[in-house]
Amino acid sequence: MSTTDLTFASRDAHRTWLAGQARLPGGFRVGVTRFAFTPAEAPKPSKMAITVIAADQPSKAFAAMFTKNAFPGAPVIVGRGRLAQPALGAIVINNKISNVCAPGGVADSETLCTEAGRLLGIPATAVLPSSTGVIGWKLPVSQMLPELPAAVSALSDTNGILPAAEGICTTDLYPKIRRADLPQGSIVGIAKGAGMIEPNLATMLVYILTDLDVSRDDLRAALAEAVGATFNRMTIDSDTSTSDTVVAWSSGVGGKPDPAAFRAALRQVCADLTEDVVRNGEGVHHVMRVRVSGAPDAATAVSIGKSIANSPLFQCAVCGNDPNVGRLVCAIGKEAGARFPDLDLSRLRLAVGGIEVFSDGAFRLDREKEQAVTAHLKSAELYASVPPSDGLTFRPPVSWPPHERSVVIDVEIYNGTISAEVLGADRTHEYISENADYRS
Amino acid sequence: MSTTDLTFASRDAHRTWLAGQARLPGGFRVGVTRFAFTPAEAPKPSKMAITVIAADQPSKAFAAMFTKNAFPGAPVIVGRGRLAQPALGAIVINNKISNVCAPGGVADSETLCTEAGRLLGIPATAVLPSSTGVIGWKLPVSQMLPELPAAVSALSDTNGILPAAEGICTTDLYPKIRRADLPQGSIVGIAKGAGMIEPNLATMLVYILTDLDVSRDDLRAALAEAVGATFNRMTIDSDTSTSDTVVAWSSGVGGKPDPAAFRAALRQVCADLTEDVVRNGEGVHHVMRVRVSGAPDAATAVSIGKSIANSPLFQCAVCGNDPNVGRLVCAIGKEAGARFPDLDLSRLRLAVGGIEVFSDGAFRLDREKEQAVTAHLKSAELYASVPPSDGLTFRPPVSWPPHERSVVIDVEIYNGTISAEVLGADRTHEYISENADYRS
Repeated sequence: MSTTDLTFASRDAHRTWLAGQARLPGGFRVGVTRFAFTPAEAPKPSKMAITVIAADQPSKAFAAMFTKNAFPGAPVIVGRGRLAQPALGAIVINNKISNVCAPGGVADSETLCTEAGRLLGIPATAVLPSSTGVIGWKLPVSQMLPELPAAVSALSDTNGILPAAEGICTTDLYPKIRRADLPQGSIVGIAKGAGMIEPNLATMLVYILTDLDVSRDDLRAALAEAVGATFNRMTIDSDTSTSDTVVAWSSGVGGKPDPAAFRAALRQVCADLTEDVVRNGEGVHHVMRVRVSGAPDAATAVSIGKSIANSPLFQCAVCGNDPNVGRLVCAIGKEAGARFPDLDLSRLRLAVGGIEVFSDGAFRLDREKEQAVTAHLKSAELYASVPPSDGLTFRPPVSWPPHERSVVIDVEIYNGTISAEVLGADRTHEYISENADYRS
Repeated sequence: MSTTDLTFASRDAHRTWLAGQARLPGGFRVGVTRFAFTPAEAPKPSKMAITVIAADQPSKAFAAMFTKNAFPGAPVIVGRGRLAQPALGAIVINNKISNVCAPGGVADSETLCTEAGRLLGIPATAVLPSSTGVIGWKLPVSQMLPELPAAVSALSDTNGILPAAEGICTTDLYPKIRRADLPQGSIVGIAKGAGMIEPNLATMLVYILTDLDVSRDDLRAALAEAVGATFNRMTIDSDTSTSDTVVAWSSGVGGKPDPAAFRAALRQVCADLTEDVVRNGEGVHHVMRVRVSGAPDAATAVSIGKSIANSPLFQCAVCGNDPNVGRLVCAIGKEAGARFPDLDLSRLRLAVGGIEVFSDGAFRLDREKEQAVTAHLKSAELYASVPPSDGLTFRPPVSWPPHERSVVIDVEIYNGTISAEVLGADRTHEYISENADYRS
């Protein structure tokens, strides 16, 4: 999937690179405001960011895909309805509370859209709402409405999309921005999401802006194609979010691109953002790149890849740089045994970092190979755990992506000609610390 | 599932109780030997236990169920063949290496059976092999054969089944023994398994002995029924093992039981062992008891229950005594959205510890309820993490089950009349520490 091979020595170096990615396509501005609030369900005050992305002119060329979770958030329900509207003029995004299954949640989202539309001089139906954060709590609309004017006043293209990339973050360690430039204009995308990530149609909050002049239908087709091959093949923790949303939106003020070049550029931006989301996944020490080939169809290849990437035991082995490839076979076998009993796996071949560890139905292991696999795992490590000051609460020692290397796992099953790549990550103390006490 | 509500103040108290459970049914003896060996694939020496369970006379009344993982261990392959044999005379079990997909693995298992049969004066085909431990490494047969006579010489009923319950352990914190007594005889079962646990037909190494006089067919039918309702509804980490095996075996020297009473007693022993396996799961702080009702069928109820029990985010919330019930809804919704899109979940009702948190499509939360859910979570905690001496490697501070309380989650979906209970556990630092460095 990945199209870059970057390394960063510090947070400052990463930030300088992000700023270089952040230039907005023509026709868009972003504004962010932050304020303190207290949820009705918890005694502790918190800080919320409201991010507004606005087009100079509402545009009919927009596409959006949403979670398939059976309990979608209110903004997802509202957003699905917006797809039938003639044009999109603004997106209003809040973090901290995701507005999922809270009583009156849809009305709350619509109230925000109405006020944002009034401030921007566009209909409420031209505003797409998005929310991310705690599931279950009610959106503090009465505390948000007085803050909206500040976000609208802040609308600007001076710092490009970087303020929006920061405004939508929750547990993300750093903002994620990726771009592609074509002769006729550019595509720039941002993403948030570090946990509750195994998208089923789209990932939690991705916004892709372009000035390239493409039609609504072409944009929607290109987005579906790109998402299927990128965001839908990633997992951090198998928990498909209730808020997954990916939006692609063209201002149309640039030139008409070559259709194939546009699709490739959009897919590249989606692939790069997918890499970023996994690499910044909660507690991730290693990104796993699982390449399954020889499958009868893409669904089988993706299922086997995800079974490996989601195996708690294999995730822990990768975390420990432990060449426990037995757990790889366990993960393939549990999925095949439960879901694909007709697959003939007698010729299975497995390689880790290019080192063959299994072929023709049996392990091919010795001490030298185990050491080589360990060396490969260590080379792909983003950081090692640092003993926490309180003895219990692990925090990542880096807040930038040091490199773009991955643990590369090749699975050849010899049951067809289809291949697919799945991105996943290891399971670590930092993930446990992050999520055992997310809200307190 | 559970039939007991025990508490233990110390390891000694638990051990005294275990000894009281351990009396062998008539017609069986057990023997264990331990020795040092060095795997061919790793430089570090290790210690293996070989456990032999022998019947005074080979018996035709035996039943066994095995993993559905597509890469079964060699002992599972051999064991499936044994089901057609006229009688079972002994089971030979080793820990440390599971003999899965190692070159020549089946021949290695048969070699052990041949030698055990020779020592016991029975055919090799009357010996069932079992192995548990690292997947991928080769069984050190040449180092095991000279040790077999010591295990056979040790055969005895003096300490009941306790030596076998200890001999089969790997990462288990304590042995697991459960029994049922009927007027005509008794049933006693042992289990090992603390990780790689989401059995698909049976769980990793369970042996149930009885002197009750039941036929082979009745025993096999009763075992399938009991396993389906107990072991197959448990998960620790969703990783279906390559070695799952459950054996039920009657010496027939007792009386003929009432058939319904026998099935109930067998199911009770299986249910109690299931509880023990989850409670002793790697790093488990809380057992989760998920009761799904109002389902159209058992498969749907079990799927939804397992989606909750296997949700990494909900597992972490439970670990942290955090009343993050949003993750409960996320876990139900991801499974329903992906697998049961036709379910009508508009009347969903959720309760945690009897406290209603969701009904008729919306959360019902306030600060008092959140505090009550937290109190319920804390009441079910087995232990809290202790800061590790090296700052990184967490170890459980107890090596016995302090109590049998659980986090009780009720999910009423109002789509039918079928109910099912699934047992799971939280995800903790101790699980990560155990599995990030299992082999080194």
